Amino acid sequence: MTLLLIIDFLGTIAFSVSGALTAMKKRLDPFGILIIAFVTAVGGGTLRDLLLGAHITWMRDLTFVYVIGVATLLAIIFRKKLGYVRRSLFLFDTIGIALYTVLGVEKGIAADLPPIICVALGTMTACFGGVIRDILCNEIPVIFRKNIYATACILGGVSYFILQKTPFSTEVIVVIAGSVVISIRLLAVTFNLSLPSVYGKDNEIETQKRIENANKE
Amino acid sequence: MTLLLIIDFLGTIAFSVSGALTAMKKRLDPFGILIIAFVTAVGGGTLRDLLLGAHITWMRDLTFVYVIGVATLLAIIFRKKLGYVRRSLFLFDTIGIALYTVLGVEKGIAADLPPIICVALGTMTACFGGVIRDILCNEIPVIFRKNIYATACILGGVSYFILQKTPFSTEVIVVIAGSVVISIRLLAVTFNLSLPSVYGKDNEIETQKRIENANKE
Amino acid sequence: MTLLLIIDFLGTIAFSVSGALTAMKKRLDPFGILIIAFVTAVGGGTLRDLLLGAHITWMRDLTFVYVIGVATLLAIIFRKKLGYVRRSLFLFDTIGIALYTVLGVEKGIAADLPPIICVALGTMTACFGGVIRDILCNEIPVIFRKNIYATACILGGVSYFILQKTPFSTEVIVVIAGSVVISIRLLAVTFNLSLPSVYGKDNEIETQKRIENANKE
Repeated sequence: MTLLLIIDFLGTIAFSVSGALTAMKKRLDPFGILIIAFVTAVGGGTLRDLLLGAHITWMRDLTFVYVIGVATLLAIIFRKKLGYVRRSLFLFDTIGIALYTVLGVEKGIAADLPPIICVALGTMTACFGGVIRDILCNEIPVIFRKNIYATACILGGVSYFILQKTPFSTEVIVVIAGSVVISIRLLAVTFNLSLPSVYGKDNEIETQKRIENANKE
Repeated sequence: MTLLLIIDFLGTIAFSVSGALTAMKKRLDPFGILIIAFVTAVGGGTLRDLLLGAHITWMRDLTFVYVIGVATLLAIIFRKKLGYVRRSLFLFDTIGIALYTVLGVEKGIAADLPPIICVALGTMTACFGGVIRDILCNEIPVIFRKNIYATACILGGVSYFILQKTPFSTEVIVVIAGSVVISIRLLAVTFNLSLPSVYGKDNEIETQKRIENANKE
Repeated sequence: MTLLLIIDFLGTIAFSVSGALTAMKKRLDPFGILIIAFVTAVGGGTLRDLLLGAHITWMRDLTFVYVIGVATLLAIIFRKKLGYVRRSLFLFDTIGIALYTVLGVEKGIAADLPPIICVALGTMTACFGGVIRDILCNEIPVIFRKNIYATACILGGVSYFILQKTPFSTEVIVVIAGSVVISIRLLAVTFNLSLPSVYGKDNEIETQKRIENANKE
């Protein structure tokens, strides 16, 4: 329990800081930065709970509201020093999406939904805060272009269901499925992997240009 | 029943392909293409069900998840050949929005809502998947600029309620209301109709320029 | 009661016109203008009710649908004369957000939520229609950059809870909290105040440029 809570805190911190950074790149004011940080941290889980017709957790449990507030404040104050903790933030983010994937999958199972939808809910929990962040900042969501992020969550969710066919206990399954997410993400970043492009080689330079244009501020 | 299901399939295919095409125009990766296709196909109905507080159909019935998956895969593989089936896709799309309009209207009636809201729900079911698609792709939604698409749905929905005052059976009303949507859409495209501009003639060239600028990738 | 209803009407009119104006600046067609006006007027309350799992008011009570329709129609017809009523619209908008803030706070209290979430719901009710308007029009939401708008709502909401510790009746608290929102907004606009920038003085010109670029149509 305590370990899960710590991971959840670290993930929330990483998500808030990522939201705050995107908002500051767009030169938003403090209110805008806070909202973007908040939405990045809780947006995926909120969308999942809306689709499930479930209660929205952060409306009744304020812990995460405070964590997000403090993390955002620190991100604003130390915005020029965040480069020094980039590696830690990346790790927090990675274990955060692993946890959120597993949490989303388990919420789907609890609601008695088919496996493919549970995996989708897990991926949504982990990734859609970032999608809403990018929409609010007027960008095409980054995970639609660099998808190893989402692919890691999908494969982690799939492994959860494969492992359920084995005699492993739920705790072990959670740890392995989470590790799958973390490993794929780390491998993808280390070796700079991405899904195969569907557009063919000759188009790659043009693609790069279009993406840059699409993102021009 | 079977006919409705076939129409629903054809509509879902057309919506998925339209989403996949928009995503490929933005050079998204396979994951992004799949998500945009999915959202285009189910987004309108999902928003309607959220507003109604109803269950989200695709979370419990996987048929459409599979249809969307296969349609998207085929759209990616045959992306250079889609021009040959453009006419079929347009027809699928047109009968699709006719069906979705009627379905949305009937969901509103079942929830005992006033006619104007039922028509809005029908139009939303048919059109808002495309709105979410365009937002995710960082464009101003196309139906806000070429509105015969939405107008066809609105008039189809209105005719549903007018026909209810007649002794026609529900089946006949469904068919006529759906035909109204299809006819208006076909007429509008054939004769290149659009709602009268509110901006006056002298501004038309400027308008054209602005729209082009607003949509520049 | 009647006074509240009149304020609610005036606020809805101001919000609809603000939506219609943004839509016309983007040269949308009549359908697009209507949808943007509608979403600006009811979007904040709808998001609040979705998060609360409550019924969506405008789906059952058509009064506001009609008010929005008429206000939008008048805004389109008199679009070149709206400069003459700009001051009235600004006042309507200001008392509108004051009312919506208090309404949102009270909905949160009725749902037994913690004060910080009630203040967030009040601010959301007042401000998020505008956020959705800006997203649909492909702009970075204006309240993320000029935040005295949202700050006025937050401080009004906070004063509601401070006043609850006093022996004032609920009616008096509502009036004072609403007045706080109105006063801060008027002061902010009169003296051209905004939250302190987090980016430092030397960056201000660059900031200005970036904002202009980000908003270029």
